Amino acid sequence: MMKKPLLLLALTAGLATRAAAQNAPIFPKGELATADNHTGNVWLKELSEPDANFTYSIAVATFEPGAKLDWHLHPAGQILLVTEGTGYYQERGQPIQVLKKGEVIKCLPNVEHWHGAAPQSSFTYVATTPIQKGKTVWLKRVTAQEYSLGK
Amino acid sequence: MMKKPLLLLALTAGLATRAAAQNAPIFPKGELATADNHTGNVWLKELSEPDANFTYSIAVATFEPGAKLDWHLHPAGQILLVTEGTGYYQERGQPIQVLKKGEVIKCLPNVEHWHGAAPQSSFTYVATTPIQKGKTVWLKRVTAQEYSLGK
Repeated sequence: MMKKPLLLLALTAGLATRAAAQNAPIFPKGELATADNHTGNVWLKELSEPDANFTYSIAVATFEPGAKLDWHLHPAGQILLVTEGTGYYQERGQPIQVLKKGEVIKCLPNVEHWHGAAPQSSFTYVATTPIQKGKTVWLKRVTAQEYSLGK
Repeated sequence: MMKKPLLLLALTAGLATRAAAQNAPIFPKGELATADNHTGNVWLKELSEPDANFTYSIAVATFEPGAKLDWHLHPAGQILLVTEGTGYYQERGQPIQVLKKGEVIKCLPNVEHWHGAAPQSSFTYVATTPIQKGKTVWLKRVTAQEYSLGK
């Protein structure tokens, strides 16, 4: 029979492997975003491009802790499905909402807003974005003061 | 200082708690499906209903091992994003495709197909379904012989 410390070590190693596997992101993280519309590191991965049948894109965005998009709006709106971590979402004139894994946000057409990771947590969502009314309109950078109100 | 067996036990317990938390589904599992269009237990949760801005529904489907939908088709197609487990997807006249976490499938409009869990694994996906051309059309049950070809 295995001695107790060895047995516990084997169990620990097994659980550590399992925890690491479960910690892996669901979808590929994609490429580091290079557009000048965010602060901090953001990775983007397109999961499904719009085409003749599907008039919306589906993409994953992953933010390092503290990373955030600039203020922007979507001419036809966007739906966010949070898959990992904790983030912030704010519409112009409204308080910051804290978003957790499993939450769903409908950003309505032409509503100015921003989203990103909380200061101490990475943040990942799947975004579905109807494209029939044109591209995202990028606005001002989120200031440190605006971001600090989420704390 | 903690003795080694106690230290390992504490570490094991910590990892077990972490593994359990990470094993929790991302989205709520929803309700057991009661419609007569599947075999085995299937849970459904609507994440986003279609409305004037978004002409597609977003829903999560969770299958126990071996559970599967009947053959069916979508008048405007459907996109599946696999979030957990291993499943099967088959279009009429094609071999069964095995689907893993992270894979994306576009079911084109009016293409007869079925999907469900593999025999030994649960299976969860997020489905986006354009609704402007009407509801899913349900067809025949998947036979044991058809399902067995996925093994």
